[in-house]
Amino acid sequence: MASRDTPVGFIGIGTMGLPMAKNILKAGYPLTVWNRTVQRTTRLIEMGAKLASNPAQLASESSVIITMLSDPQAVLEVVLGGVGSAPPVIEGVGPGKVLVDMSTNLPSVSRMIADKVHERGGEMLDAPVSGSVKPAIEGALTIMVGGRSETLERVKPVLETMGKRIFHVGGNGDGCSMKLALNMHLGTLMVSFAEAFTFGVKAGLDPRIMLEVFNNTVLRTYISETKGQKMIDGDWSTAFALSLMVKDLDLASDSARDMKIPIPLTSLVRDLYYACVANGKGGLDFSAVATQLEQMGNIKISGGVGSSP
Amino acid sequence: MASRDTPVGFIGIGTMGLPMAKNILKAGYPLTVWNRTVQRTTRLIEMGAKLASNPAQLASESSVIITMLSDPQAVLEVVLGGVGSAPPVIEGVGPGKVLVDMSTNLPSVSRMIADKVHERGGEMLDAPVSGSVKPAIEGALTIMVGGRSETLERVKPVLETMGKRIFHVGGNGDGCSMKLALNMHLGTLMVSFAEAFTFGVKAGLDPRIMLEVFNNTVLRTYISETKGQKMIDGDWSTAFALSLMVKDLDLASDSARDMKIPIPLTSLVRDLYYACVANGKGGLDFSAVATQLEQMGNIKISGGVGSSP
Amino acid sequence: MASRDTPVGFIGIGTMGLPMAKNILKAGYPLTVWNRTVQRTTRLIEMGAKLASNPAQLASESSVIITMLSDPQAVLEVVLGGVGSAPPVIEGVGPGKVLVDMSTNLPSVSRMIADKVHERGGEMLDAPVSGSVKPAIEGALTIMVGGRSETLERVKPVLETMGKRIFHVGGNGDGCSMKLALNMHLGTLMVSFAEAFTFGVKAGLDPRIMLEVFNNTVLRTYISETKGQKMIDGDWSTAFALSLMVKDLDLASDSARDMKIPIPLTSLVRDLYYACVANGKGGLDFSAVATQLEQMGNIKISGGVGSSP
Amino acid sequence: MASRDTPVGFIGIGTMGLPMAKNILKAGYPLTVWNRTVQRTTRLIEMGAKLASNPAQLASESSVIITMLSDPQAVLEVVLGGVGSAPPVIEGVGPGKVLVDMSTNLPSVSRMIADKVHERGGEMLDAPVSGSVKPAIEGALTIMVGGRSETLERVKPVLETMGKRIFHVGGNGDGCSMKLALNMHLGTLMVSFAEAFTFGVKAGLDPRIMLEVFNNTVLRTYISETKGQKMIDGDWSTAFALSLMVKDLDLASDSARDMKIPIPLTSLVRDLYYACVANGKGGLDFSAVATQLEQMGNIKISGGVGSSP
Repeated sequence: MASRDTPVGFIGIGTMGLPMAKNILKAGYPLTVWNRTVQRTTRLIEMGAKLASNPAQLASESSVIITMLSDPQAVLEVVLGGVGSAPPVIEGVGPGKVLVDMSTNLPSVSRMIADKVHERGGEMLDAPVSGSVKPAIEGALTIMVGGRSETLERVKPVLETMGKRIFHVGGNGDGCSMKLALNMHLGTLMVSFAEAFTFGVKAGLDPRIMLEVFNNTVLRTYISETKGQKMIDGDWSTAFALSLMVKDLDLASDSARDMKIPIPLTSLVRDLYYACVANGKGGLDFSAVATQLEQMGNIKISGGVGSSP
Repeated sequence: MASRDTPVGFIGIGTMGLPMAKNILKAGYPLTVWNRTVQRTTRLIEMGAKLASNPAQLASESSVIITMLSDPQAVLEVVLGGVGSAPPVIEGVGPGKVLVDMSTNLPSVSRMIADKVHERGGEMLDAPVSGSVKPAIEGALTIMVGGRSETLERVKPVLETMGKRIFHVGGNGDGCSMKLALNMHLGTLMVSFAEAFTFGVKAGLDPRIMLEVFNNTVLRTYISETKGQKMIDGDWSTAFALSLMVKDLDLASDSARDMKIPIPLTSLVRDLYYACVANGKGGLDFSAVATQLEQMGNIKISGGVGSSP
Repeated sequence: MASRDTPVGFIGIGTMGLPMAKNILKAGYPLTVWNRTVQRTTRLIEMGAKLASNPAQLASESSVIITMLSDPQAVLEVVLGGVGSAPPVIEGVGPGKVLVDMSTNLPSVSRMIADKVHERGGEMLDAPVSGSVKPAIEGALTIMVGGRSETLERVKPVLETMGKRIFHVGGNGDGCSMKLALNMHLGTLMVSFAEAFTFGVKAGLDPRIMLEVFNNTVLRTYISETKGQKMIDGDWSTAFALSLMVKDLDLASDSARDMKIPIPLTSLVRDLYYACVANGKGGLDFSAVATQLEQMGNIKISGGVGSSP
Repeated sequence: MASRDTPVGFIGIGTMGLPMAKNILKAGYPLTVWNRTVQRTTRLIEMGAKLASNPAQLASESSVIITMLSDPQAVLEVVLGGVGSAPPVIEGVGPGKVLVDMSTNLPSVSRMIADKVHERGGEMLDAPVSGSVKPAIEGALTIMVGGRSETLERVKPVLETMGKRIFHVGGNGDGCSMKLALNMHLGTLMVSFAEAFTFGVKAGLDPRIMLEVFNNTVLRTYISETKGQKMIDGDWSTAFALSLMVKDLDLASDSARDMKIPIPLTSLVRDLYYACVANGKGGLDFSAVATQLEQMGNIKISGGVGSSP
């Protein structure tokens, strides 16, 4: 099991990666970091992290190597290498090392990488997270882990610096599948919620009263609780960017393609998010998909609010 | 305000209507009942209810007239009359009387009926319920009321014998709109949940682990809590019949047509429920829509369960 | 078989009905007409038609009674009567009379009317038309007939004054089903065509070159030939109004509901047309549905045209 | 311009590639061939073709290099090389050489390859084909060409041995976009046609009469003419495999993703084809998608055929 002197490496210092890496550091682990854009590591270096010159070096100096990258392509390049890329993680992997990929990855890609890691005697977990920047800062992410349970036990203390709920959901790649299943549902839930509101507001209901009913009946959900008021206010300030939701739905679509199964609701929902991206709304919160439903029904949800309660 | 000696009439003694009428009776109100099929009133008569010879007579002898019928057509016939129908409610309506239609009705039909009731000096509320047989028995329904607030205040004690949460959502017809908005969302939520599970199980996840994750993250919903385990068990015993969900989605579709707005997710979802009806599953619980997703992906969700946890 | 002195009645003198009635008159048949708005019959009276005082009288004086009305509700009122409506056709129907309903009607409504007509000893055909105003003027409509073949033989000479191709497709109601099946396909074909063009133009293709390829390959269709250039020109002048396409798709949807079968493509397509109606485009040609695809992709098909060929 | 002694190279001797290469050979061009599975080249060698030892060698010995491969990945590997792949085409490309990629490729991949070819002084055309094995044998394919017109002029005589209609649709990648736009429409047309038939047959129509009406009205299309009778007969013998249609729709979906635009009809249609693949029907003709509509409506189109016409 990882102890406080287990050397940890962290690759991918982005919006999510930065607070996650900070939490590892704060917990007392010796941390080595690497990022394509080196400037993003500055704050961590100041806090005591060591800078690796490339992913391979980081891997060779760490027992637990964490990757938190933007997409499967980025993971492939950093871990297995690519044309013109820096020496990859895999060159530094050997017996006793654990690669923990916390990116939202494709199950098939994750399994392929696991095979390569195993060939070199290492271990691999896929451990994508649910939750956005706030829980990342608070070390309160939900982590869904695929891989061997012994491996998970070894690195659990490290994961616990970042997340509160850690689910072991199956073998390699299964963490990714779980994450995609959750976000398919989340993305669809949002669109359905917005559709119900365009319907109700067009029918003459006050959206604030609608929301009160939703939040006090069996239809209360995370979406009604966190997005309902924002939708009524037309406040699309970003907690989880629409373009990131699209990225997850793209991965779900790719994964369904790998399995050759239909996901008809997700497909339709994805196209409605795409309409938003095409109209320049990719940077808004994913709840802004409501504006596409508003366009189609020629109705403003916020316009349904009268001047007095 | 209604007191315990306010005479109440109840029309529509079906699966929901029977327990609702019983609760009014138990609360001590003098109750007159009428039902197209008279046999269904027997139990209530034994409990002390009076049998009206037709809807008009019931209305003339009651201060509060409650209708709980299967669809807008049935409400129209009972309240306004039709070719060969019994003397309708409207003939017994006059000043001081309140018609409370608790059926799931179309907003446009409800408003039209309200106009007729107002013409005769009466009052009208639409007050559809959310909740199935169990909360109906327990007097724990959710009731969404459209109409004037003074009218609602008058009949509230009667409604409180049937429901725990009573929301005043707007003017005439708005209770119906609210109910349809809720059930559009509920029906879609169910399909999306099943889609996520077919995806996950095809990907190799154990559906019991999936459910545990759903129920312990932001994706916990009424559906995950009440339908998840049943879906895994392939247990489609009926709490809310699929054919009744279809009926509500049909009304939502009709209402969207009245307003000429698209509800694309609901439309797709409705077609998936229709596929179930076409294949003889209308009498199963609405969660059985999962079997249509299973067919399309050639996967059994329950088949994803291994022999040991 | 109808001969030139067979008295014909025509009810429904609208955009389509007027040229159809004119053609009957021109062929030499004695014609009686009725229309809710009497002014619309003026031109026919000038040409020699007789004006009936109500549908019942028209029916009693005609051997062949033709109805060309806007929707099932209108047919029901004119043929079977309704609250406050004029004496209906059915009162003038008896042995030897043939009611030919050329409206686009619901199969179930058409069959119900046929039953009533049969009860009075008359005969009924449903005979909806394919084709718009121009073929109506030219007597070149396509007519799809449901009912008994002997009955069709009797009235065929009258139908031949209005249409070039007359298909006997089955028993009562089957003409309606055939019409709806055709228009489901036509409406979907249009949306798919527009979707392919938004895709191509976004990808950088010149829509004029696209159209040339469509029209010279296996993808040449009635839509590519008649709507392609208009779509490129952004010319939405009305040949067949979008609101009328919606009406037909509504009937297809109602008919699918009667049969409890899903029609998922038509459902989605209908919602895209609805988005156009919601945005004030119901009066444009149905090809204007392309503008909804353009909105969703943030692309102008006509904008894809360069300044020179 | 290519003359009969222009050396031509052909890579990809599959179901389509074999008859295409034969036609080049028959027209008298010196032909060099290469295929991953060398056995597939035997027949061409017997007919006089020369076998290259790898793609690079083939390219260095040919003026016009044709690729006809299964997907973008295969094209990338053969043209630009990959881990463990044979020396790729690009190594043999130089000034004066023209690479003609006749595969159905992604526009973005095609453009990227064109850039690499241009860097080495060569020319590139994307020239995907429309049409199946029969027109390939008869030299009657439709070819959609993207790239410079001077380049097309040079290789046109070679293309004319394979295709009858050659459209120059734009710059590099535009041939691919055109092909995908056509097949999106074709795939949707097929599903819509099947949906109309399940609707009609459920409504009681004889599918043979339906087909006669479709084929004699404005709804006559390539699909009604070539797939209608097969669908009625339940004859799913393969002209164009369902799995290949899925492949094209996958590329259309990928290309829409590159452009971030929705293609909602194609998305739904693709999922219906996927349901067929999931149920083991990928090897049947793509018209077998009708069986998925049949499942959903619990109706057999062929079952609608009576025992006598």
